Amino acid sequence: MMVEGRHFLPGQDMADVAWKLVAVNLSDLAAKGAEPLGVLLGYMLGGDDARFAEGLREACAAFGVLLLGGDTVRGTGARSFGLTAIGRATCTPVPDRRSANAGDAIYVTGTLGEAMLGFEALKDCNGRDATGADSAAYRRPRPLLAEGRALAPLVSAMMDVSDGLLLDCWRMARASHATFQLDSETFPVADPARLNECVRWGDDYQLLFTVSADVTLPVPATRIGTVLEQDIAALWVDGHVLTPRDGIGYQH
Amino acid sequence: MMVEGRHFLPGQDMADVAWKLVAVNLSDLAAKGAEPLGVLLGYMLGGDDARFAEGLREACAAFGVLLLGGDTVRGTGARSFGLTAIGRATCTPVPDRRSANAGDAIYVTGTLGEAMLGFEALKDCNGRDATGADSAAYRRPRPLLAEGRALAPLVSAMMDVSDGLLLDCWRMARASHATFQLDSETFPVADPARLNECVRWGDDYQLLFTVSADVTLPVPATRIGTVLEQDIAALWVDGHVLTPRDGIGYQH
Repeated sequence: MMVEGRHFLPGQDMADVAWKLVAVNLSDLAAKGAEPLGVLLGYMLGGDDARFAEGLREACAAFGVLLLGGDTVRGTGARSFGLTAIGRATCTPVPDRRSANAGDAIYVTGTLGEAMLGFEALKDCNGRDATGADSAAYRRPRPLLAEGRALAPLVSAMMDVSDGLLLDCWRMARASHATFQLDSETFPVADPARLNECVRWGDDYQLLFTVSADVTLPVPATRIGTVLEQDIAALWVDGHVLTPRDGIGYQH
Repeated sequence: MMVEGRHFLPGQDMADVAWKLVAVNLSDLAAKGAEPLGVLLGYMLGGDDARFAEGLREACAAFGVLLLGGDTVRGTGARSFGLTAIGRATCTPVPDRRSANAGDAIYVTGTLGEAMLGFEALKDCNGRDATGADSAAYRRPRPLLAEGRALAPLVSAMMDVSDGLLLDCWRMARASHATFQLDSETFPVADPARLNECVRWGDDYQLLFTVSADVTLPVPATRIGTVLEQDIAALWVDGHVLTPRDGIGYQH
């Protein structure tokens, strides 16, 4: 679900909103190594339906999915949109966040913080910087479908980073009954001067995964730490315990 | 999608809202003769999440479906909820609204207008008539899953009546490139003195279907008319042409 004022800015181009609605759901399929088949849309009508339809068409074409169905409603106040993406698993077991093993290496794809910088660029332009390349990471994220499919048969655990690297690491560690030990010097961030923000902001839709340290990866990724046997904490960064109470990511 | 103030009353018991959200989506599966498997929920958090969860649990248990996943978001203003129901077709071709044949009989299950009367009963009690049996048809509709499965192999066209009998008849006629000729004296309504309203109000979730006139039906239903070759209008009622401009149902 995406809600006006929370997941997108009032006045933002609805074509970008539609794109992102598709992309963030396909990102969940990417983290499962799944091949997307189609989407079902719950759409709250508004004054700019044509722009939304255009962005929806672009995203479906870009990622090879069909609009299978859905619903339209009239609403009042802040608009909200729901989307369900349907896909087919390409390998079993389907990767989840529960199976990181002690000794595994922890990796993340891409660069973190680009969506944050894109959001700031867009906000500086009153939500109407439709062409600025620097806001594209926020406006038009790309689900890592090919990367997810390539990684799925190899990883022990995988998820997409939607709510911030640190929070999602904590969640994966907890779900796996393990401890994640991270080294902040290795974090691949868009702005090293703002490293703390880059790894706490969400919306980057990179893939976080754990894998045996001796596996040769089929896609570029950065090693950020090691899975340990569960100890007193789920997450250690540079020798310090971090928990969600420390504000390590976006909580719903 | 269900939106506060449009699909449910502010202050309504959220357990009823959750039930209805599941039921109306399963009704779409019923009209396809499909067996429901599970649901995916887009949930906007609020102050009464426990009641919503209780109604969701009750509906999933009543109809034999699993909550497979979904999303939670925080929102502002009117709340909205989205749900996608997944099912498996039990016969092919899967019934749709496009295949009514000239000469077929037109049927509808149950009684129309019960949801309207239930809504009025609920509204009279300021949205808090949680126990009144007369509001149950509005608060807790039941998808006709068994009836849909029994009818699916026999019908030429089928859909659920969610936006009013007349509007849905008009839609089925249009989609089938046919003309529907109805006799209002046959309409099964909850309040004959308010027949016009009963067949224009939605929310009853009965099944509308067309079938060869010589078929013995496996479920109770009322014959309301006959499919004709397409003429100048999609819908005739008692010899008068009706179109959506005449306010024949709930339009989104």
